[in-house]
Amino acid sequence: MGGPQNLSFVLAKPLDVKFEDRPIPELKDSRDVLVRVRVTGICGSDVHYWQHGRIGDFILKAPMVLGHESAGEIVKVGSAVTDLQPGDRVCMEPGVPCRHCPECKFGKYNLCHDMRFAATPPYDGTLAKYYVLPQDFCYKLPENVSLEEGALMEPLSVGVHVVKQAQVKPGDSVVVFGAGPVGLLCCAVAKAFGATKVVSVDIVPSRLEFAKKYAATGTFQPTREGTPVANAAQIIKENGLGVGADVVIDASGAEPSIQTCIHVARNGGTFVQAGMGRPEITFPITALCVKELTVKGSFRYGAGDYKLAVELLANGRLSVKELITGEVKFEDAEKAFEEVKNGKGIKTLIRGPED
Amino acid sequence: MGGPQNLSFVLAKPLDVKFEDRPIPELKDSRDVLVRVRVTGICGSDVHYWQHGRIGDFILKAPMVLGHESAGEIVKVGSAVTDLQPGDRVCMEPGVPCRHCPECKFGKYNLCHDMRFAATPPYDGTLAKYYVLPQDFCYKLPENVSLEEGALMEPLSVGVHVVKQAQVKPGDSVVVFGAGPVGLLCCAVAKAFGATKVVSVDIVPSRLEFAKKYAATGTFQPTREGTPVANAAQIIKENGLGVGADVVIDASGAEPSIQTCIHVARNGGTFVQAGMGRPEITFPITALCVKELTVKGSFRYGAGDYKLAVELLANGRLSVKELITGEVKFEDAEKAFEEVKNGKGIKTLIRGPED
Amino acid sequence: MGGPQNLSFVLAKPLDVKFEDRPIPELKDSRDVLVRVRVTGICGSDVHYWQHGRIGDFILKAPMVLGHESAGEIVKVGSAVTDLQPGDRVCMEPGVPCRHCPECKFGKYNLCHDMRFAATPPYDGTLAKYYVLPQDFCYKLPENVSLEEGALMEPLSVGVHVVKQAQVKPGDSVVVFGAGPVGLLCCAVAKAFGATKVVSVDIVPSRLEFAKKYAATGTFQPTREGTPVANAAQIIKENGLGVGADVVIDASGAEPSIQTCIHVARNGGTFVQAGMGRPEITFPITALCVKELTVKGSFRYGAGDYKLAVELLANGRLSVKELITGEVKFEDAEKAFEEVKNGKGIKTLIRGPED
Amino acid sequence: MGGPQNLSFVLAKPLDVKFEDRPIPELKDSRDVLVRVRVTGICGSDVHYWQHGRIGDFILKAPMVLGHESAGEIVKVGSAVTDLQPGDRVCMEPGVPCRHCPECKFGKYNLCHDMRFAATPPYDGTLAKYYVLPQDFCYKLPENVSLEEGALMEPLSVGVHVVKQAQVKPGDSVVVFGAGPVGLLCCAVAKAFGATKVVSVDIVPSRLEFAKKYAATGTFQPTREGTPVANAAQIIKENGLGVGADVVIDASGAEPSIQTCIHVARNGGTFVQAGMGRPEITFPITALCVKELTVKGSFRYGAGDYKLAVELLANGRLSVKELITGEVKFEDAEKAFEEVKNGKGIKTLIRGPED
Repeated sequence: MGGPQNLSFVLAKPLDVKFEDRPIPELKDSRDVLVRVRVTGICGSDVHYWQHGRIGDFILKAPMVLGHESAGEIVKVGSAVTDLQPGDRVCMEPGVPCRHCPECKFGKYNLCHDMRFAATPPYDGTLAKYYVLPQDFCYKLPENVSLEEGALMEPLSVGVHVVKQAQVKPGDSVVVFGAGPVGLLCCAVAKAFGATKVVSVDIVPSRLEFAKKYAATGTFQPTREGTPVANAAQIIKENGLGVGADVVIDASGAEPSIQTCIHVARNGGTFVQAGMGRPEITFPITALCVKELTVKGSFRYGAGDYKLAVELLANGRLSVKELITGEVKFEDAEKAFEEVKNGKGIKTLIRGPED
Repeated sequence: MGGPQNLSFVLAKPLDVKFEDRPIPELKDSRDVLVRVRVTGICGSDVHYWQHGRIGDFILKAPMVLGHESAGEIVKVGSAVTDLQPGDRVCMEPGVPCRHCPECKFGKYNLCHDMRFAATPPYDGTLAKYYVLPQDFCYKLPENVSLEEGALMEPLSVGVHVVKQAQVKPGDSVVVFGAGPVGLLCCAVAKAFGATKVVSVDIVPSRLEFAKKYAATGTFQPTREGTPVANAAQIIKENGLGVGADVVIDASGAEPSIQTCIHVARNGGTFVQAGMGRPEITFPITALCVKELTVKGSFRYGAGDYKLAVELLANGRLSVKELITGEVKFEDAEKAFEEVKNGKGIKTLIRGPED
Repeated sequence: MGGPQNLSFVLAKPLDVKFEDRPIPELKDSRDVLVRVRVTGICGSDVHYWQHGRIGDFILKAPMVLGHESAGEIVKVGSAVTDLQPGDRVCMEPGVPCRHCPECKFGKYNLCHDMRFAATPPYDGTLAKYYVLPQDFCYKLPENVSLEEGALMEPLSVGVHVVKQAQVKPGDSVVVFGAGPVGLLCCAVAKAFGATKVVSVDIVPSRLEFAKKYAATGTFQPTREGTPVANAAQIIKENGLGVGADVVIDASGAEPSIQTCIHVARNGGTFVQAGMGRPEITFPITALCVKELTVKGSFRYGAGDYKLAVELLANGRLSVKELITGEVKFEDAEKAFEEVKNGKGIKTLIRGPED
Repeated sequence: MGGPQNLSFVLAKPLDVKFEDRPIPELKDSRDVLVRVRVTGICGSDVHYWQHGRIGDFILKAPMVLGHESAGEIVKVGSAVTDLQPGDRVCMEPGVPCRHCPECKFGKYNLCHDMRFAATPPYDGTLAKYYVLPQDFCYKLPENVSLEEGALMEPLSVGVHVVKQAQVKPGDSVVVFGAGPVGLLCCAVAKAFGATKVVSVDIVPSRLEFAKKYAATGTFQPTREGTPVANAAQIIKENGLGVGADVVIDASGAEPSIQTCIHVARNGGTFVQAGMGRPEITFPITALCVKELTVKGSFRYGAGDYKLAVELLANGRLSVKELITGEVKFEDAEKAFEEVKNGKGIKTLIRGPED
């Protein structure tokens, strides 16, 4: 027909994006499938690559397709594929580990040193018409889950992983710092895991209003003049947290938030660092020691996280569609990046490309 | 006779110690025992109270008997005591929890908010002729364990608790920062727990020599000009730690040590903060996050720690007598505090008081 | 006046019950409270003592007050009580451990060898006007929880403990054998813990109907002629459990149920034995071995279980009032025992005694 | 030349073995290696296939090379192999999982439903001159480990897995039923994991003598007339196990042993079933319930087990050469099967085939 066969949205270099028609990728393994991408969400890390061409040690050295929060339809399956067939609607887990290293074999594939992660240099992302994945990294969407919700399974899986790292148990009190997409989803997942108190903390009142309507049982806006100790005491007091919160999650990456987190946790409590900000911060290490806290990082998602994300949604344990606040056509993809950069709305989706 | 009945070594106020004859304490509960104290070790926290009259929120407001690392003999038992009898040689766990709060009931009594801890204001310590404890906080010493070794069960229990917090498993590689008494004992316990590599890190060469002879399989002296990242890389390289250490323990409390710890740990590894230094430090939080480390505090000791300390020693899994580098009479107790303050030797014991 | 001061329902010997007026019990410890009992549920073990005077090694040797599932009001508090005051409505945890043994100190007080458990010889039960407990074994009922529901916190805590032993996690598939009170409550708790499939198995169709309306997502009635392997395969097939259930719970105590449980579990799955039947059964040990199952017993309830039971109810995560199918006056207590013995209804409550 | 290129020892049908010259196998993946097999141990399951042509659902349908406990030398490596090179001496983990299923991705690859296990129908075993494995299933032997010891890394890995399943911790008391190769290795591994009491139980006195010299701290010979309860009480009494053993392991598969195991364990203790015998046995289920035991199966070995086995040996934490009691040439392989069948010695090795 002469139209593009595999239109792709490519980051050529920082701040320089373009559309390219690339070959349709081949299946490389008999367990691979080819997905026709339909919807893609944009997150902060996408924007960071677009702006700076790097995150930490991952540096853009050659043009790279952007995007990693996608859902679509299976169009082709390898000879050994048993779980999926053409026409199946799926969400796509964008990082495929080596399966051979100790991390993979110990059930921690998110820590694989040879991970191939979409839109992390040098691996192309999913903002294209077609994308190849192994069958076990595609998750069939139940009938009551839309493709748009499917695109949100990526940030929801981030939230699932954070809450699993935090070992949230029924009855726990949980305080979540940061009411952006990940923080909000952490609230929703914590509640689905049985937390009875879920307090959202942010400095923007409108976000707290949203959090309250969405999943939080309480909110708190720290005062800028308050010390972390004072803000922590106030959070505990206003929300009846007794000797402190069972679990504290930072999804903000902000230094004062992290400091406050440590003081909000009860003796023996757990704190999970989920957001990335400055590489080094001033940290209340003695408090961690005498309260015997468990502090964990949370990095992407691992075994079972995507599957659980879909199940929580399909079973009505939580909802994600409230977070979708904008949508643009594939041809206007850069606009979605602009919106996220400008903090407009919560989650902007890119539809397409169309045929 | 007219001699003192219960000679006690009392901190009247900072830098002001004196000997006092106090009444012999009464058993308060039918499960209590009265111990005739024979040997007491001195540690950094004792010295800190002596010098400053406070540690954190614990502030000396009235004269207090010092000392909390003791062993002695049972001289009297309550009517419901079944496990001990007069004449038994015991080591004495110096902190008795409330047994009623959630922390106690969940098996974390070291985190009890109503802990009565010897020589932590306002509770008197063990540097006296007699001391009362519940029977379950006295541990009978097997025949092959001396009273002097019994006095070292306190710092050994600290080490046991640290290594349990770190979940050291057979085959693990462990790096311990700080080669003072606690750091050295952490090395010995880690080895007894099956660690196959135990690297001791300190800035004082003579301590490293001792560590090597005592329990470490390797040592490292960080260069002051080296960055934490560079020192970490060097530790990994020199000791064949591959992608990093399974477990890292800081028993130094020093900021550069803690920073280096984070960079020495492998993806998914564990770091335990065991030493107390400045309340706040600059901390590489992003590394913690992307490596998905588990960071834990370690505070005193809890269920089973003292019992295990005695068993490890009695079964020859480790040894502690090498650490005893000095001994003074009860009447010269202040000298022991001086020696610890001046960093002389590793562990100084106070014998007595005599009859 | 002349009325009884502390009317009590006493088992004199097997099948021989009577009402006795006993002295109002004294507070023995400054942390004790006196409870005016208002409602008491009856369960199978109460009936077993009434019929046989013994369960296992616990043998009735002297007259004993029956009952252990109670709720009431605080009427007196010891001098050190801080959490409760007269007038508070509470549910009563009926077993008080020694707090001194290793089991207690390791956080497993339900396994205490010196447990004092209501209505387990030689300890009197709660079917009396007054009962003394330590404050930490009374749980204040929130306003939206009735005293009748309070009496059900005991079997609910049994269910909470079973599901915690089973480590049910969000997304798990759970199969529960037996649809009596404990089995039903296990279904409800499993769902509250996030299980997405909860299959109730029983041989009585009316119970399955109730289970379906109450908390189960699926039900199964085993055929008596079917082998355990065949029934297990059918449960898996009908409920889409794939390679088997993540968690299987037996609340029936019946041999064919237990055998089927093992075959229903997936490789690496968990099976919890919650119901007591014959002391020995024929058991498929090789299947346990090659599937590498984790099998656990569940005995009463422990740290945090009662608190969580109240929270789950108060937060609407589950409901218990559907299970209350009968109520008798204190004077008719024996009738309640008859009803339970005859399997009439699900849970019969005894109200009173009145003033 | 004319000699055989890949001499293999083949089970044609039950009781019918023969030598065959087969083609040298090809590397199938760039991460595969070709191993020149040098030494192979024989175990009970090899003998069972030889005698009966089946174990459970695994049924011999075509001729199959026997053997799965081997060590040898690398002779060829695929293009992506980084960890090994020709000439390296290795032990060979004989089961390769699919790496794609949930079990594999959750870190439990020994439970993979698509495992390809040497000498388990329909997969050929290692009793041949050459065998292909992925590099990550070959473990380089340190200089101080011989090829003969390398062949014992398979049963040692079984023992490591059992003891890890049992979560043996330093200070634990462990009772192991059965003093065959696996039981003995469980004793040695339990001790290396820090168990302070390790009691070996068997009905053959000579085995107990060996166990005592090898790794047990105590032994017990059950009387045939004694009940499981009586034998358990006697084990506890003679070995000072207090309220029971922390961990009990059955490596016998015998019904009376398994029954005794349950009664030996303390409240809250752990029992691991490691040996296979009759598929169903009479089992004291109520004791499991009221003692709240954790019972686990143990199946083969998984992530990290082989690596740890080699490290324990290389670091002198245990020793295996005592177990090697016989050796035959490859041409006499059937003799080794006869010896194992007749219970002669502990472990018989087959050397070769020679060039």
